Amino acid sequence: MSKTIGVLTSGGDAPGMNACIRAIVLSAARFGYQVIGFEHGYNGLLNNEKIRLSNLHVQHIIQLGGTILKSARCEAFLKPDGVKNAVANLNSNEIDALIVIGGDGSLRGLQKLSEIWSGQVIGIPGTIDNDLNGSDNTIGYQTAIDTALDSIDKIRDTADAFERIFLVEVMGRHAGFIALASAVASGAEQALFPETIEDPHAELESIVQHVECLRKIHGKTSIIMVITEHLWPGGVSDLAETLTHQIGIECRPCILGHIQRGGAPVAYDRILATKLGAYAVECIADQETAIMVGEHNNQPSRIKLVDAFGIQKSLDPYLVKIQQDLFDVVHSMQ
Amino acid sequence: MSKTIGVLTSGGDAPGMNACIRAIVLSAARFGYQVIGFEHGYNGLLNNEKIRLSNLHVQHIIQLGGTILKSARCEAFLKPDGVKNAVANLNSNEIDALIVIGGDGSLRGLQKLSEIWSGQVIGIPGTIDNDLNGSDNTIGYQTAIDTALDSIDKIRDTADAFERIFLVEVMGRHAGFIALASAVASGAEQALFPETIEDPHAELESIVQHVECLRKIHGKTSIIMVITEHLWPGGVSDLAETLTHQIGIECRPCILGHIQRGGAPVAYDRILATKLGAYAVECIADQETAIMVGEHNNQPSRIKLVDAFGIQKSLDPYLVKIQQDLFDVVHSMQ
Amino acid sequence: MSKTIGVLTSGGDAPGMNACIRAIVLSAARFGYQVIGFEHGYNGLLNNEKIRLSNLHVQHIIQLGGTILKSARCEAFLKPDGVKNAVANLNSNEIDALIVIGGDGSLRGLQKLSEIWSGQVIGIPGTIDNDLNGSDNTIGYQTAIDTALDSIDKIRDTADAFERIFLVEVMGRHAGFIALASAVASGAEQALFPETIEDPHAELESIVQHVECLRKIHGKTSIIMVITEHLWPGGVSDLAETLTHQIGIECRPCILGHIQRGGAPVAYDRILATKLGAYAVECIADQETAIMVGEHNNQPSRIKLVDAFGIQKSLDPYLVKIQQDLFDVVHSMQ
Amino acid sequence: MSKTIGVLTSGGDAPGMNACIRAIVLSAARFGYQVIGFEHGYNGLLNNEKIRLSNLHVQHIIQLGGTILKSARCEAFLKPDGVKNAVANLNSNEIDALIVIGGDGSLRGLQKLSEIWSGQVIGIPGTIDNDLNGSDNTIGYQTAIDTALDSIDKIRDTADAFERIFLVEVMGRHAGFIALASAVASGAEQALFPETIEDPHAELESIVQHVECLRKIHGKTSIIMVITEHLWPGGVSDLAETLTHQIGIECRPCILGHIQRGGAPVAYDRILATKLGAYAVECIADQETAIMVGEHNNQPSRIKLVDAFGIQKSLDPYLVKIQQDLFDVVHSMQ
Repeated sequence: MSKTIGVLTSGGDAPGMNACIRAIVLSAARFGYQVIGFEHGYNGLLNNEKIRLSNLHVQHIIQLGGTILKSARCEAFLKPDGVKNAVANLNSNEIDALIVIGGDGSLRGLQKLSEIWSGQVIGIPGTIDNDLNGSDNTIGYQTAIDTALDSIDKIRDTADAFERIFLVEVMGRHAGFIALASAVASGAEQALFPETIEDPHAELESIVQHVECLRKIHGKTSIIMVITEHLWPGGVSDLAETLTHQIGIECRPCILGHIQRGGAPVAYDRILATKLGAYAVECIADQETAIMVGEHNNQPSRIKLVDAFGIQKSLDPYLVKIQQDLFDVVHSMQ
Repeated sequence: MSKTIGVLTSGGDAPGMNACIRAIVLSAARFGYQVIGFEHGYNGLLNNEKIRLSNLHVQHIIQLGGTILKSARCEAFLKPDGVKNAVANLNSNEIDALIVIGGDGSLRGLQKLSEIWSGQVIGIPGTIDNDLNGSDNTIGYQTAIDTALDSIDKIRDTADAFERIFLVEVMGRHAGFIALASAVASGAEQALFPETIEDPHAELESIVQHVECLRKIHGKTSIIMVITEHLWPGGVSDLAETLTHQIGIECRPCILGHIQRGGAPVAYDRILATKLGAYAVECIADQETAIMVGEHNNQPSRIKLVDAFGIQKSLDPYLVKIQQDLFDVVHSMQ
Repeated sequence: MSKTIGVLTSGGDAPGMNACIRAIVLSAARFGYQVIGFEHGYNGLLNNEKIRLSNLHVQHIIQLGGTILKSARCEAFLKPDGVKNAVANLNSNEIDALIVIGGDGSLRGLQKLSEIWSGQVIGIPGTIDNDLNGSDNTIGYQTAIDTALDSIDKIRDTADAFERIFLVEVMGRHAGFIALASAVASGAEQALFPETIEDPHAELESIVQHVECLRKIHGKTSIIMVITEHLWPGGVSDLAETLTHQIGIECRPCILGHIQRGGAPVAYDRILATKLGAYAVECIADQETAIMVGEHNNQPSRIKLVDAFGIQKSLDPYLVKIQQDLFDVVHSMQ
Repeated sequence: MSKTIGVLTSGGDAPGMNACIRAIVLSAARFGYQVIGFEHGYNGLLNNEKIRLSNLHVQHIIQLGGTILKSARCEAFLKPDGVKNAVANLNSNEIDALIVIGGDGSLRGLQKLSEIWSGQVIGIPGTIDNDLNGSDNTIGYQTAIDTALDSIDKIRDTADAFERIFLVEVMGRHAGFIALASAVASGAEQALFPETIEDPHAELESIVQHVECLRKIHGKTSIIMVITEHLWPGGVSDLAETLTHQIGIECRPCILGHIQRGGAPVAYDRILATKLGAYAVECIADQETAIMVGEHNNQPSRIKLVDAFGIQKSLDPYLVKIQQDLFDVVHSMQ
């Protein structure tokens, strides 16, 4: 049976979204399905901005950052009539199944749509934040870590030359995945992320103490702290000022910002995106709906959409332990 | 109980070996163990080339390719007296445990040593080839894929500008991990690796047919084939010549070579190396021996040394399927 | 005649400083000169923090960012007794010639030293800002442009996916070299730098107008503006807010910050640093003093130290013209 | 007066060709000229494969390697009737001026065309080889050096870990620009290029001697030699075998190959390409013909087409001297 698949990218863009669109289009061709791309996220569903995607459209896009379908946050879609209008448009375009590549908010929207639309809906985890349950990695996460790492390596050069303290703010929304991974990978002396910090201000004393131990006991002359965005009230610049005052050494803030969302995806993300795009189409052939596809323990996996954003995903506990252990002062002194 | 740990890197160097040495030294400090590095692989054990490794030696090496302990293949170690002499030297240095970071051959040697030495021996999978059982990834593998990918992306520019066919030879020893992954990630139209090819020459006709279908049915003007080293008798240059003759379009060979072994490790490899280095020290504290540590399903894991190199590791079957499906001509035609 | 050369790196670090130190040490060996490195900029002169540099110290440092001699700003050196104490220390170490690798402030300090010290002094332009007269490029400038460019390319992905306006702040102190070059190279639709802007606030209307023309006449959906640091009163975040309000489209600020100072130098900077290091030693052999060495029209050149920082260096007028022409709305409309 | 400009890219592709096409199209718009792109090099002129280029075609191509107009070598163009047919086609398309972006061979062809065609012809130096007189740099050259450098840095990791000798073959056709620059930038211990070597075999003894001095006197354990393609009879693999035999240490060959032609252009090449593209259009407005535009001493420059390929361009003599001096054994020993 031939089907028409709609596809859109939504929310913050993530490297690998194009690789995923490509895999969907190439895989659909094998099943004899046609693919309609909606542009600008859910806005495209509301405004009927669409494009028929052929193999030619997706040639040589596997390496491109961003998304050829554009993305957007869409307030209108979340309003009472938004979802209804989207359904009307999906039906008038005779769409059988809708694939949405995006993050937490985008999949919440998709769940709402699935509750009133009779077509199949499949979510694909596309976000650098890695904060979706049911997939070990989200598309874009590994690239974002490498981008952050590349910057932190550069900052280390200056930190080392000047024997200074640098506070590097990375993305992650409310999750510490990027901060933890980029801290371990860069050999950062400290990582601050929301999963282990309930009250940031209460941590201040222990942060100061840790820095002083790193300097006095570990003999560190340059120190790098990696911090998740939104964690410190007043932002990383405020924390840098506070620490400069308390420690008496210049602490410089660096906000890595939007560079973490762009760039050519690394191999890991291109492969993950290709797998999940192909698998999403297979799930459509299998009559699946209201699921997010993912990869768990190196196997393609399916999870109920509601469980993807409704259950909090945990950091790798062994990695959390290692980050603390490697610069654990008390033990190292013995 | 205090222990003295010996550590060496052996066989082909892999990005992340230094990150692993660093993690071993920092972790050992926590347990109050001291660490002796032996240089030039097993040669260092035979010639007593050694260095006492402190935290200072491993500062800011996490990002370096190569290995500060140097590496080598060591014929002498494999001779009758080799292992005996190594044991004598380990004992005279009062080494309690030996960690070897290396590939297939290096771990085979370690197994032999373990059979006659009373100390603990732990292997860590450090090879770009990813051909060790018991760890989903080996240290250096992800970096090698990204290095190969970076080159293939560049070659695509020329292939596309000239509408030519390029044959890219990647490393992998006798395994297709790098070829398969870099082919999927680069969108290469064909991947040739040993796991699916028994008799290369028997494949020639199907390769030619595939190229012609790619051009005629998929409308491809540039084509990239990724091939594992040692696969084609006569090498990739020979295959390029044969194909040029048979297809009538210029096929150019590219041998990526040793660039795949070097470079700053990507975040994935630095994190894996850090985990495995820390875990190896924990295993020593646990009195483990004759094992290789690894990571399986995102958990630290232990496997008998003999099973690491004695059981062949399989390619990801879903990835093999995808590589074939995406350019599957027959289905796409329907 | 054998000589002893002192060398130090001062001010903001720049990629290529290590390549320059290496060239000085290797070249000095040819002349039979010995080299003493002073650490932490001029502080090393005051505190006698020094190291005898041999060929071994500079092996495999050509590719490293930062500086093995560390750097610093040094307030004490600029105080009345600072220069005197430095002279005393240079004499007690029997230094015949001092080479300082640094920027504007560092060379001003060197000039002061030259006025009361009898030894030879040679400056080498090492700063990412490119704001020293007498050398077409300063060491680190090309690398900083490429680092900024790499980030702007990534930001373009998101700007394009979201059809947004991004304001990217780059370094440059009070000069527009990095802003102009990275804007042209990235195809940024607007570049704001101090050489062409006297009163920033007076520019606001023309900026808004330019954006609206870019959108309406050029059909641009994403726009990137590159801005030199310190240019906009209140900073780039303030400008972004103002523009968002006036244009009615979200304008996002990105401050690239310290990543521009670090990283492995690109080939251009390694070659320039190698040339200037070698040439500085030749100038010492030639009994030169109170000069800055540089490269002008692809030839090694010498300029009086006072003219290096005393005369303002101009931007390439043809490049300024091109940046304006390419998005010149009035002409393009015809 | 309105004009129609034809543009094509010819010969080996070079990073920055797209940036140059973009600048031509955007600049032509300012003058009210229209632009026709011919595809596949001179073949497009013969077969009338053409495309009308608008601002939209060149949006976001500044960062792309390869060429959107495709390239090719064209035997037919060089045959008696080739140029005549090209002229006929230029006339029937009412082309007033033709811009060719390419290397030595492409500009020779353009000169022939200029001899029988009444339209204006302008050459732009687009080749990684940098072997065109009249422009200090050709488009693509700096990117090729950085690509080669990136690979050599990686090879150094392995060379160093294994204490081996590596022979790295780089491109350059019959000129040593890439070899010399990438050797100096990577700190390679030896560079072999055609400008200083008349009879390669006669050099063998001095190469062997140099290696032995590097090892014995400089204490080098790893050695990298960079060699221009086509220099050694039998190729770099043959030289590696010969040296392995004579020196008694394993010498490994690495052929960097086509990766040097691709990839995103570095800032330097994007800026150069943008300048030359804009300047070529200005020259057309100035009624110039039979010239190649270039950049000399940081100024846009014009040179007679015949002098661009007819006069051999020299290597930077100071750079040649430095490469020899830095590892000059005799002097260093003193």
